[in-house]
Amino acid sequence: MTLFSKHQPVLNKAIEALHARTFYAAFPEHPAPAVYGETADADGQAKFKNQLGKKFEELKQTHPQSWGGQEESPYTQEALTISYPLFSSESLIANSKKAFHTWRKVSVQDRAGILMESLERVKKRFFEIAYATMHTTGQGYMMAFQASGPHAADRALEAIAAGYEELNRFPEKVMWDKPMGKFNIQLNKEWHAVPKGISLVIGCSTFPTWNSVTGIYGSLMTGNSVIVKPHPGAILPIAIFVTEIQNVLEENHLDTTICQLAVDTFDKMITKELAEHAEIKLIDYTGNSAFGSYLEALPGKTVFTEKTGVNSVIVDSVDDADKAAANLAFSVNLYSGQMCTAPQNFYIPAEGINSPAGKISFDDFAQKFVAQINGLVDNPKAGPYVLGAIQNKKTSERVMEAEKLPGNVVLKSKRIENPQFKNARTSTPVVVEIDSNKKEVFSKELFGPIALLIKTKNTDESIALAQEMAVKHGAISCAAYTTNPSIKEKIAEEMALAATPVSFNLTGSIYMNQNAAFSDFHVTGGNPAGNASFTNPEYVTKRFTWVGHREPVK
Amino acid sequence: MTLFSKHQPVLNKAIEALHARTFYAAFPEHPAPAVYGETADADGQAKFKNQLGKKFEELKQTHPQSWGGQEESPYTQEALTISYPLFSSESLIANSKKAFHTWRKVSVQDRAGILMESLERVKKRFFEIAYATMHTTGQGYMMAFQASGPHAADRALEAIAAGYEELNRFPEKVMWDKPMGKFNIQLNKEWHAVPKGISLVIGCSTFPTWNSVTGIYGSLMTGNSVIVKPHPGAILPIAIFVTEIQNVLEENHLDTTICQLAVDTFDKMITKELAEHAEIKLIDYTGNSAFGSYLEALPGKTVFTEKTGVNSVIVDSVDDADKAAANLAFSVNLYSGQMCTAPQNFYIPAEGINSPAGKISFDDFAQKFVAQINGLVDNPKAGPYVLGAIQNKKTSERVMEAEKLPGNVVLKSKRIENPQFKNARTSTPVVVEIDSNKKEVFSKELFGPIALLIKTKNTDESIALAQEMAVKHGAISCAAYTTNPSIKEKIAEEMALAATPVSFNLTGSIYMNQNAAFSDFHVTGGNPAGNASFTNPEYVTKRFTWVGHREPVK
Repeated sequence: MTLFSKHQPVLNKAIEALHARTFYAAFPEHPAPAVYGETADADGQAKFKNQLGKKFEELKQTHPQSWGGQEESPYTQEALTISYPLFSSESLIANSKKAFHTWRKVSVQDRAGILMESLERVKKRFFEIAYATMHTTGQGYMMAFQASGPHAADRALEAIAAGYEELNRFPEKVMWDKPMGKFNIQLNKEWHAVPKGISLVIGCSTFPTWNSVTGIYGSLMTGNSVIVKPHPGAILPIAIFVTEIQNVLEENHLDTTICQLAVDTFDKMITKELAEHAEIKLIDYTGNSAFGSYLEALPGKTVFTEKTGVNSVIVDSVDDADKAAANLAFSVNLYSGQMCTAPQNFYIPAEGINSPAGKISFDDFAQKFVAQINGLVDNPKAGPYVLGAIQNKKTSERVMEAEKLPGNVVLKSKRIENPQFKNARTSTPVVVEIDSNKKEVFSKELFGPIALLIKTKNTDESIALAQEMAVKHGAISCAAYTTNPSIKEKIAEEMALAATPVSFNLTGSIYMNQNAAFSDFHVTGGNPAGNASFTNPEYVTKRFTWVGHREPVK
Repeated sequence: MTLFSKHQPVLNKAIEALHARTFYAAFPEHPAPAVYGETADADGQAKFKNQLGKKFEELKQTHPQSWGGQEESPYTQEALTISYPLFSSESLIANSKKAFHTWRKVSVQDRAGILMESLERVKKRFFEIAYATMHTTGQGYMMAFQASGPHAADRALEAIAAGYEELNRFPEKVMWDKPMGKFNIQLNKEWHAVPKGISLVIGCSTFPTWNSVTGIYGSLMTGNSVIVKPHPGAILPIAIFVTEIQNVLEENHLDTTICQLAVDTFDKMITKELAEHAEIKLIDYTGNSAFGSYLEALPGKTVFTEKTGVNSVIVDSVDDADKAAANLAFSVNLYSGQMCTAPQNFYIPAEGINSPAGKISFDDFAQKFVAQINGLVDNPKAGPYVLGAIQNKKTSERVMEAEKLPGNVVLKSKRIENPQFKNARTSTPVVVEIDSNKKEVFSKELFGPIALLIKTKNTDESIALAQEMAVKHGAISCAAYTTNPSIKEKIAEEMALAATPVSFNLTGSIYMNQNAAFSDFHVTGGNPAGNASFTNPEYVTKRFTWVGHREPVK
């Protein structure tokens, strides 16, 4: 049985799911022993611990220039002292250029089979990846498992499915038969989906697999060779993905440098060197806007970015103010606001919000929100696990700085204890009330657990500000609470025009931060928060070119 | 009956044809009286003549700043003295911005119905458009009819079909039902295809409708308002299309400025002013590379370009040298080489080419080619009609300059008489033999009837040069003659890697210059000749953004 026929049933389901957009997941998100095995968690943790202080020798990439690695755990604030093989940009590109000509000739079906098989292998390492993710990103255990494991694998599968579908969108060959009156012109035509070349995937420090695998699998599926440049602070999780891709390539007698890991260190970053190289044709990037815009402007490249944005919450009216406040408080606390989908600007009318229990004043809603945050962060069974740790020291500093913003500090940030990791870098959310005329304060992303309660004249001003922020500065998510159908329609329309998806009236265990594969397009590509979307057709079609040849029928 | 239901059968056929890529045409290409009516040609000519010297008053655009127009017939070398309403960029954009919010709310089906109806109206004016095209572009009558009429309408229909399909690619609404173990999370989700905004379509002087309608109809189908900025030298043909779009909009009680014509004059071009305006989100462009690259680099815009390229012919071996030479001679003569798909660089091995009749030397093949050109241009029943006239004086000058290229002039250009137009600006092809080491000579587009016979070491060098030209300078078409299957495979592969479609071994009445709607992707988008392709999925998906909203099920 070929790998393709082995995986074809799931591939077919995934393609169907792409279009149905109802719930679908190929990889179970719950780390249940019944699903993943009784010892899977302990084994994964042991494997992770065993890697600490050692060389990562699993990659099938030979002759490194040297070894290096500077990852540090936000939970222990100690170096992981894992070292990875380092290669020169030139050697990575030379390998990739050669490997490209092998990989592009592998059939679409075989590529799909190989890539899906690699996800099966990665599945066996989800727990190891979870611990690697915790100790590089600071995510809590559950998020680290889900986001870097099953959710990432589903996103990768989604990219495979989308690529597979687009590659099969047009016939390989047809006979074109044009009646000319007295005779026919007959041409044999054939179409080739020609991959663009070498693809560079640049990772971020907070979601090292989730944000990278769509680019990796999208590019590989469409026949490009890939160089994965992880963030120097979050290498191990994606190194395991690349290892498993290489293992399956090797088993299938293919060049393992079809997908390479390009580790660098903070003191000698190679991202620009790679990105600017003429042989790099595709670039996927997640990270800050300045670097993303620099990449987008590089001539002769096809670039997919997810940059920063200013996510809004529009509070107009609620069915249940406490439930709304609880949901929003969780969104701010989840991974300490270090998600690209986390809310920052909360627009609340000065006159308060309507509810079945009567008008709730601005201050009362602010207090409900603060109470919900406190309830969560002060709950030792929940707080440390929902908040996780702060990936980057600068984020902690930014949170402290937020207290000096020109507004009323409703809640100060503090450190909380993590019972498992005494030295964990933690920061609970800071909440600041800002007047809506202080636009310069809230017109930029303040990455981390920082919530700004912006007092607006009314909901119309809230909507206008949310739209303006998205159009000018980008937005990846938006939440809105309203019980008024015409206001709901207005929000839906105005935010759609700003290319921002809206989650309405979320309560309970679903949050604006969450974007599900096969259903939610992650980032729309239509505002400055990024030019690409997981996974719309464009996300894969831009990775290859349709070329048609023709010849008269003999 | 709605316009949509009226046109749905043809739309369905067109969508099917998009994928089948076998022969399909909705608009008959032959100007036969039996198809278009006994008096259609004479009526169209009369209408065109009646327009000369007058204001073009058919547009539904009110309050022009002034009137102007500087079109000149390449056949008479006299001004057409047609004047068009001129508007300021600001007023065009203000209208378009307002109209956008009307048009985006029109349903996908209604948009398709309105646009298809406009093509039906345009069909009744194909002959008028043909004469308008002749007397602005210099195209011969038959090409002017076909390219600006039925072929353009087929390309427009193709863009409508592709847009319609992509807009219906994902569901409008679904219920997302995620099992969580003890309960399910249920969200109502809905997706909106949000148009980008105002679309600017910049026309060229040689194919004023064929090269513009895909952008116009592609943008309108996907809900954008459109400003059509024709080349100041070729306005009337596309003015008729815009008029008919406006007529159907008006009949359907819609804002006619949903699609506006933005005429300018050579002394006061408004293209940059429009292109750089923040409200312009989409730009379609056909023309020179310098301006195209400037447009591509404008930040915050989605830009579709067809720029210039260096098209190659690789002659390796032939079944019938005379038939091959005849086919190529026709390609060079057709509209005097003023097609973006016309060949320029003919790579022929110094040692000659193989044929069943034995080796044919480089010089012998050159002579066959020249003989075929002469046979055509000196045939008074064919030459004037195939060559047409030279649109731009600079092209005539370039042809004369080509005689000074550092090579052996095998055939000089000359003027030929057009029996209908004594003052026609004509130039027959110049053919120059160039050595393959003079790369600087043939590494750029020499627009017009200029053929360079490049003497190469062998076919491998021919292929390498053709590929290099396409990769570095762009190529839209390539022809190759070879009877050797392995060489054929190599050419197919190397040119595919340069994103250039190859026409193999064409003889008889099909030419490398021709690209058919619903089958040939025109320009691949994969080399510097342009970043877009008529009409691949990307061509329409980039004109809108998928935005998904969601809300818990009550």
